[in-house]
Amino acid sequence: MTAFNAVTPHIIDQLTRIVGADNISTASAERELRAVDESHHAPHAPDVIVWARTAEHVSATLKLANDARIPVTAWGVGTGLEGNAIAQFGGIMLSLEKMTRITEVHADDFQVTVEPGIGHKDLNAELARYGLFFAPDPGANATIGGMLANNAAGIRTVKYGASKDNVLKMQVALADGRLINVGSRSIKQSSGYDLLHLIVGSEGTLGIITSATLKLVPVPMYQSAVVAAFPSVEAAIETVVAVRGSGLEPAALEFIDAEHCALLQAAENVGLTPHPTLFMEFHSASDAGLQEGLVIVREICEEMGASSIHATTDNTERQKLWRARHHSLEILKRAYPQKKFCVMDVSVPISQYPALIDYVEQIKAENDVFLTLIGHAGDGNVHVEFGYETPEQFELALACDRLIVQRAIALGGTATGEHGVGLGKAEFMPLEHGEALDVMRAIKRTLDPNGILNPGKIFP
Amino acid sequence: MTAFNAVTPHIIDQLTRIVGADNISTASAERELRAVDESHHAPHAPDVIVWARTAEHVSATLKLANDARIPVTAWGVGTGLEGNAIAQFGGIMLSLEKMTRITEVHADDFQVTVEPGIGHKDLNAELARYGLFFAPDPGANATIGGMLANNAAGIRTVKYGASKDNVLKMQVALADGRLINVGSRSIKQSSGYDLLHLIVGSEGTLGIITSATLKLVPVPMYQSAVVAAFPSVEAAIETVVAVRGSGLEPAALEFIDAEHCALLQAAENVGLTPHPTLFMEFHSASDAGLQEGLVIVREICEEMGASSIHATTDNTERQKLWRARHHSLEILKRAYPQKKFCVMDVSVPISQYPALIDYVEQIKAENDVFLTLIGHAGDGNVHVEFGYETPEQFELALACDRLIVQRAIALGGTATGEHGVGLGKAEFMPLEHGEALDVMRAIKRTLDPNGILNPGKIFP
Repeated sequence: MTAFNAVTPHIIDQLTRIVGADNISTASAERELRAVDESHHAPHAPDVIVWARTAEHVSATLKLANDARIPVTAWGVGTGLEGNAIAQFGGIMLSLEKMTRITEVHADDFQVTVEPGIGHKDLNAELARYGLFFAPDPGANATIGGMLANNAAGIRTVKYGASKDNVLKMQVALADGRLINVGSRSIKQSSGYDLLHLIVGSEGTLGIITSATLKLVPVPMYQSAVVAAFPSVEAAIETVVAVRGSGLEPAALEFIDAEHCALLQAAENVGLTPHPTLFMEFHSASDAGLQEGLVIVREICEEMGASSIHATTDNTERQKLWRARHHSLEILKRAYPQKKFCVMDVSVPISQYPALIDYVEQIKAENDVFLTLIGHAGDGNVHVEFGYETPEQFELALACDRLIVQRAIALGGTATGEHGVGLGKAEFMPLEHGEALDVMRAIKRTLDPNGILNPGKIFP
Repeated sequence: MTAFNAVTPHIIDQLTRIVGADNISTASAERELRAVDESHHAPHAPDVIVWARTAEHVSATLKLANDARIPVTAWGVGTGLEGNAIAQFGGIMLSLEKMTRITEVHADDFQVTVEPGIGHKDLNAELARYGLFFAPDPGANATIGGMLANNAAGIRTVKYGASKDNVLKMQVALADGRLINVGSRSIKQSSGYDLLHLIVGSEGTLGIITSATLKLVPVPMYQSAVVAAFPSVEAAIETVVAVRGSGLEPAALEFIDAEHCALLQAAENVGLTPHPTLFMEFHSASDAGLQEGLVIVREICEEMGASSIHATTDNTERQKLWRARHHSLEILKRAYPQKKFCVMDVSVPISQYPALIDYVEQIKAENDVFLTLIGHAGDGNVHVEFGYETPEQFELALACDRLIVQRAIALGGTATGEHGVGLGKAEFMPLEHGEALDVMRAIKRTLDPNGILNPGKIFP
């Protein structure tokens, strides 16, 4: 790791000349506000916040920081869950909060070009008038730049893919201030190295995204929800496989464990029972297709021994059912107001889902640890939610999570399905990637030889 | 460019020790057979063919070649269309023809792990028993390794994506012989840099794929075909936009120009008329969904002024209709037996499709050049098929194509949608990528410092 230099008054002067006095702050309140994301990681405040308003601001700030060997960490809105945007080495926090414009809507191309600071919910509110939406939905109103930097995913990935599958072109500022374009507005691209996907998910360690052209999809004409409870995790996962195998292309396929279902039921009274439960959503261009799909899903659930099946095409009822799922973390927090929670993230091939969940249950039984389970089962993604009150309980949760991550990797999965590596998963990178990690390091050195971009992330 | 060394008898000895005498040849017949792909580019024979049978063969061959500064070009089956696998600097041709095994079928995960030399049609024949298939289909029986190396796509991309969207994990031999694993069998991945997609589409210039785990999709239960003719290209493309906007998710959405339709009709007598025509295919999990979808498609086509609409859910009829599309190049060749043809490839945002086709028509009108048009309209992908008899006509075709590529890039598109850069598109890389090409070069130097991997490709 290169030794970094301090942010001197001279640097502050130069930064002020780049972005203007209104767009820079060393105030403690501003720095503390951006010292930590929504994760369990320890806060670390940057020395200065710089709000870029243009790509040129980003470029000039990076050039200055690179020449002066000062770390730069990009900031969107701080909804990350793995410390991805914590300024671990201080320096400059380059905030994209003020770059929130929709630059161009290409409705006939099912595309939109945006600045990185726009929230995906705000974007979708604007896109509604075109009958289009950006499908990845990590829950919180994360910024597009943050979602791309971390390859965020969420509940609709099973049909529409993760952030990486929904971006076509980006403008990126490199460590030395060069602005490059990667990708193309053409849907099909086989033109040279895929720098687009190299930058997506690189967590601001290879460059900072200053503009993105996103793929959009039509707002579905018809939607249904199905909630089904099963006698065992295995039966639930066999249902996941059968539903995917049916060709129905679920738009969401969520798993919630028995304990969590009991909590949701107590809070929302939506007919849930304390069993392993699947929440499913289906989108269709025709009502007939939707109805026929529900018949097929119901048959599959019955065949797999579902103890209850609740299916609806009514929008109000669907939204009520899904509200329980969408607010599950808040409901958990309200049920245990004395506890803090951290939401962990691993992902495995679907066939290994029961084995992973068995292992989590075993960990829970063997340790005095509070945890519940929720997951995007259609993708093999599991979130373990640990609750803790004391530092000892927190350490125990981390130790348990370490075992779960190692097991996920041993089952052919990954240390992180959608939260990114950030601070918390860096230690697992050698185990997961082996010698490929050396290749990642070599690419990092090539694109950021002074190591100024988001240091302390991804690499152990 | 590094100066390369010759393949000496000593090198041949060492290669023989690696792969065995049965798996190496310097015979002229073998070398000539692999001197050119299906493109219009000039052949160039390698000095020696080495047939790898294991990843370790690939690894050891690369280590030897890297130490000795000898170029290595990978070979699958030679169906490339841009000279991607021509051994432009001679040296070693590393053939994967004998690595054709299906290593593991993960049916519940909708995945299969294969060696790189297997043809995608052969793979799909084996997968039929599981009710699954690998969706990308470039037409010819290209190998999986070749498809991934070139990010091949084809007619089903509009629904299922290109090769890059259908691969989860690969083993790759780097220039220095290191074998690394990239990606994960977990569908969701946000774990470090996306080396998987960096290697896909890099045309064997960054590494050689020795194994790949592919995403599979269920064989659709119900399929339909719709063929509709339109008074203008604009009306046809408005239909493309409306069909995509309907949420019906066509599995194929192909464009054929009036002249080509006349030829297909003469050869196959499937009710085609000499108008801009769309071929569409739809997949559904239910018959009701399929039928209702056809009603919607028919309405859209009528609204856009279609002069004829032919829709069918009958499998025999569907296959007969599509046969005309699938065999279009052969039909073209049969109609003009005295001509040679080269199939060119550009892609633009769909909204720019009519502008591009107008431009091609203008080029055709202004020059005494023979060309017809066919394309994957759902992706904005256009193939111009030039016919020529004399060297002068061939040069004219290349000059016209150069103009078309430049116009495609100016329209926000790409020099190559699915054929890759190879030899023919390298000259356009600076125009398309600007400074991003320098980043590609820097990555190439980092991963292949001696430039032994498929030299002469991608970079001008």
